[in-house]
Amino acid sequence: MANFLKRILLGKPIRTDALNEERLSDRQALAIFGADALSSTTYATEEILLVLVTIGTSALYFSLPITLGITALVLIVALSYREVVHAYPQGGGVYNVAKANLGELRSLLGAASLVIDYILTVAVSVAAGIAALTSAFPSLIPYRVPLGILAILTLMWMNLRGVRSSGRIVIVPAYFFIFAVLTMIGYGLIRYATGNLPVEPIQNGAATLVDTVTFFVLLRAFSAGCTALTGLEAISNGVKAFQSPEPQRASRTIQRLSLLLGVILLGITFLAFQTRVVPTADETVVSQIARTLLGDTPFYYLVQIGTLLILFLAGNTPYADFPRLAALLARDGYWPKQFSNLGPRLVFSQGIVALSAVAILLLAFSGGYVHTLIPLYAVGVFLGFSITQLGMIVHHKRNLTRKKPRNPLSSFKSLSINAIGFAATSVVFFVVLFSKFLDGAWILLPMLTFLLIIMTKIRSHYSQVDRALSPERALLISAPSQRILAVILVAKVDRRAIEGARVARGLHPAAVKALHIAFDAEAGEQVKRTWENFFPDIPIEIRINQFREVIPPVLDFLAEAGKSWTGKIVAVVPMLVLQQPFAEFLHNKTGTRILTAIREDPRSQVEIYEVPVKLKERRTSPRRDRRGATGSRRP
Amino acid sequence: MANFLKRILLGKPIRTDALNEERLSDRQALAIFGADALSSTTYATEEILLVLVTIGTSALYFSLPITLGITALVLIVALSYREVVHAYPQGGGVYNVAKANLGELRSLLGAASLVIDYILTVAVSVAAGIAALTSAFPSLIPYRVPLGILAILTLMWMNLRGVRSSGRIVIVPAYFFIFAVLTMIGYGLIRYATGNLPVEPIQNGAATLVDTVTFFVLLRAFSAGCTALTGLEAISNGVKAFQSPEPQRASRTIQRLSLLLGVILLGITFLAFQTRVVPTADETVVSQIARTLLGDTPFYYLVQIGTLLILFLAGNTPYADFPRLAALLARDGYWPKQFSNLGPRLVFSQGIVALSAVAILLLAFSGGYVHTLIPLYAVGVFLGFSITQLGMIVHHKRNLTRKKPRNPLSSFKSLSINAIGFAATSVVFFVVLFSKFLDGAWILLPMLTFLLIIMTKIRSHYSQVDRALSPERALLISAPSQRILAVILVAKVDRRAIEGARVARGLHPAAVKALHIAFDAEAGEQVKRTWENFFPDIPIEIRINQFREVIPPVLDFLAEAGKSWTGKIVAVVPMLVLQQPFAEFLHNKTGTRILTAIREDPRSQVEIYEVPVKLKERRTSPRRDRRGATGSRRP
Repeated sequence: MANFLKRILLGKPIRTDALNEERLSDRQALAIFGADALSSTTYATEEILLVLVTIGTSALYFSLPITLGITALVLIVALSYREVVHAYPQGGGVYNVAKANLGELRSLLGAASLVIDYILTVAVSVAAGIAALTSAFPSLIPYRVPLGILAILTLMWMNLRGVRSSGRIVIVPAYFFIFAVLTMIGYGLIRYATGNLPVEPIQNGAATLVDTVTFFVLLRAFSAGCTALTGLEAISNGVKAFQSPEPQRASRTIQRLSLLLGVILLGITFLAFQTRVVPTADETVVSQIARTLLGDTPFYYLVQIGTLLILFLAGNTPYADFPRLAALLARDGYWPKQFSNLGPRLVFSQGIVALSAVAILLLAFSGGYVHTLIPLYAVGVFLGFSITQLGMIVHHKRNLTRKKPRNPLSSFKSLSINAIGFAATSVVFFVVLFSKFLDGAWILLPMLTFLLIIMTKIRSHYSQVDRALSPERALLISAPSQRILAVILVAKVDRRAIEGARVARGLHPAAVKALHIAFDAEAGEQVKRTWENFFPDIPIEIRINQFREVIPPVLDFLAEAGKSWTGKIVAVVPMLVLQQPFAEFLHNKTGTRILTAIREDPRSQVEIYEVPVKLKERRTSPRRDRRGATGSRRP
Repeated sequence: MANFLKRILLGKPIRTDALNEERLSDRQALAIFGADALSSTTYATEEILLVLVTIGTSALYFSLPITLGITALVLIVALSYREVVHAYPQGGGVYNVAKANLGELRSLLGAASLVIDYILTVAVSVAAGIAALTSAFPSLIPYRVPLGILAILTLMWMNLRGVRSSGRIVIVPAYFFIFAVLTMIGYGLIRYATGNLPVEPIQNGAATLVDTVTFFVLLRAFSAGCTALTGLEAISNGVKAFQSPEPQRASRTIQRLSLLLGVILLGITFLAFQTRVVPTADETVVSQIARTLLGDTPFYYLVQIGTLLILFLAGNTPYADFPRLAALLARDGYWPKQFSNLGPRLVFSQGIVALSAVAILLLAFSGGYVHTLIPLYAVGVFLGFSITQLGMIVHHKRNLTRKKPRNPLSSFKSLSINAIGFAATSVVFFVVLFSKFLDGAWILLPMLTFLLIIMTKIRSHYSQVDRALSPERALLISAPSQRILAVILVAKVDRRAIEGARVARGLHPAAVKALHIAFDAEAGEQVKRTWENFFPDIPIEIRINQFREVIPPVLDFLAEAGKSWTGKIVAVVPMLVLQQPFAEFLHNKTGTRILTAIREDPRSQVEIYEVPVKLKERRTSPRRDRRGATGSRRP
């Protein structure tokens, strides 16, 4: 039943040899890897304005210099990541860079920051997408959370099915968004140039700058705007997906993406300032700009649909990245190993489901509002940036000292770029962390600590298992003591018991015993008599349990036997197999519970011989079957 | 963890030999078995009035003759049940009487009607108790359903704990109710006799009687009032609980109970008519009478508390009866046999939980209103009455014809009483069924049919299992073909595989094979090489599965082997046992899933030898342990 549903929802399982990584053209790569970064432009300006407006609308002027600063940061980070792409053409991002250069702890810290980053990307992008939708259709506002959950479930379903050739499909919404937003910005600038937009002079702007309170607010506004950089690292994680020559193409795509990002960011902030937009709870800034410029025309709705699409696409990016990171961590032993299993559709199903589950929880608890999640978001991203750049510095240094580089000048140039990148991103990391600490960014510290502890605990568990299971150890400890004590568990003297006795004798045991647990002496006596009638040569032990429990006395018996018997003990457990729907509701299922209990009992080391007794005989021997059927009438 | 919680909630498990049935004095028995019947008086009048009021308030006058008729019926049924008590002093009620006299089908019909009756008693009594509460405290009206569910959960908890000496406790609320209600009736009658109650003459009462519509309404009102008889049979189910001489004491108690019932019923109806009470949705009739007579005094609240207590007590009655009936049915093979297991506190836990679950569902779906459930209730009860009386008629006839009774006159008298009882109850059954058919009583027919089908299906399943498991059959079909093919399932060539190989060799097999499922050829080749290194004498089969599944190829291999191998096949499954909390989240649990799949596979008949490989060694041999630990460094 569950299998049938799975088949319907996910489609037919795919063979492993159908796995071939699709290579992306530059245009496709820009759409796929750029979606996350581009989508940030739809809420970065709003985040800046939200902070500035707390000290008055006149302070909104500062959004312009702040955005210029952020754009400069975008270019620095982009340049730094071009170096990453050339140095690590196999992709993998911060975890790989840090593992190669900075050791276990920092690589895990990088991985942990990525994990948090990916989860937040899904939740924030979906929430922002729903905000774009509810801005255009305010009647949907009460349904924010259910709509968001529906969107995440759709992403999960799409990814569990493993939509093939996703590259070709996703370029449509990405370029639709780029086209719609650039057109709007261009139209706005033309109207500004022709004097069709209201431009009022700003008062007191420069005067308040010296105020320290204002300075701190500006810092917070800058931190808030840094969400614009989220997703910029995505290309470095997926270099292998590019067509050859991969590093060159990836590098070129980073360059284009950063320029596009800068233009859109500056354009939106400029128009927001010129149209005197103030952020509100129910309509996004981009929607307000579009409404002011375009009115309630179809063009307005096109911009909103573009925004919704790019955000949905951005929410899809972690579905490509997180399951791969989790599988990588699982292979290195830091994550439950199920995450490295390829599901029926050749995707890492466990990672996809886990990501969706956590994102849904986050969305539900934050009530579907973006702003509560964003403080967390930027901090994690900049932590990842900093660790990557630090790793790159170590990488270049090692190159310069150990190997003799063919072109030391170029290597030195790369080192300088990453050093600047590290300086910029680490400073911004601390700025963002401290300026947003009380807004909720503090929670990142316990979260990262928790993830680090979990990952190292998992690793030590797997090492312990590996050590315990090593074949050499086995050869040493498993003495071939073959003196078997067979214990037949007897529920009732019926076919099961007879099959059990037959099997027990076949083990050639040194000793054989039967064990029956009775709830009162009379019933026990009767089983004993019947048993001795059938098997006078096998002694049966009857234990009376006054608490009407079967499992504890069985375990007690086996533990006691284990103390006195020097060889090994085999519990022979005949199991009734029903093979009928609903029939299991009519039986106690003591059999399977006993199997688990014996296996898990720490007091004894008992092997279990399970004899399935099926209600229906095997189909292959119909003659035997018939004889059995008539045999049931007493001969 | 679950066990700990269970221990806290239910208390320490009780030994079987602590089981001794407590005998009840007449006074205790009247309280325990009478609660159900007495509690019916709190809503029977209301049900009558609810029907009458549909044709106008003047018709309320008819409540008096109708109640007189119902009181007569009470006395007839009581007389009939005195016969049951004498004939079946072992108790058991309709199921036992019908089984002895009417054959399987009618005894099951009786049992089914009892099952439905018990469930409805819980739901109706609790709902009516909550109605008494909300009549006194109208602010609680919105919480009807949660309060009702809480009450049922409390009943469940009390009964799962198995409250001892319940007899002594319950007499308090029962006599409290009897005292409060009789006092109120007495006070009302004194005020009526002294002319302190408003008595208006009734117009047109006699004139409308000839109208057929009115006649039908009167019939429906009578049917509605028949709920007063529910619970009257309870004493006959528990004769064994009385002190010696049981039948005499039980018979006397029935007599007292029926008289008390008649007095209270007539009293309430008379006062309801004299105080001109009209039923409303938010206040019960008894509450209205009490409020009219007593005002908002503490005496009013005493009546309401008494009503609440007796109803709660009535809701408790099925918890004594249903689990015992279910256990009886389970022992006869008509009900899942788990229902005959005595739980840790010496009660039939499964029956208690099942009863509560269904009653909660019923309460929730009916919205906590009594009136929606009552049509069902009376029909089921009268079906049970009729079957019992029919069974008694057969019983007496058999006594008169087969055995020679010492006192034929007394036997003939008994026969007449039960014949009158049968005539009365069966006529009322059809009246109630048809007059309430469209009000929801129709649902009883599919419900009874469904229960009958289920019970006979269960019975035939158990017979099939018994036949299949009969020892004679086993001796015939289990040929001692001991040529074993051992198949070792290899997940990885580690300690598990080595233990598996050791065990397989110990089976003295005619042939032994290893099986490994790989997901790609390269990985498979590597396992093959390592294996051959360790066990050059055991051939290993590597199967590549392109769908990354382990279980289906294992089953296929075993099914194929079963076709060619004439002896028996033993699958040797080494199982990693973790014995650490949370550790199971870090493993695939393929082992246990394989065990189940092999056991259930209809294509093959494979025995399973499970070798638990524990992470931690047995505590008893510390020296061996240390040797193993150092051995893990390659020697």
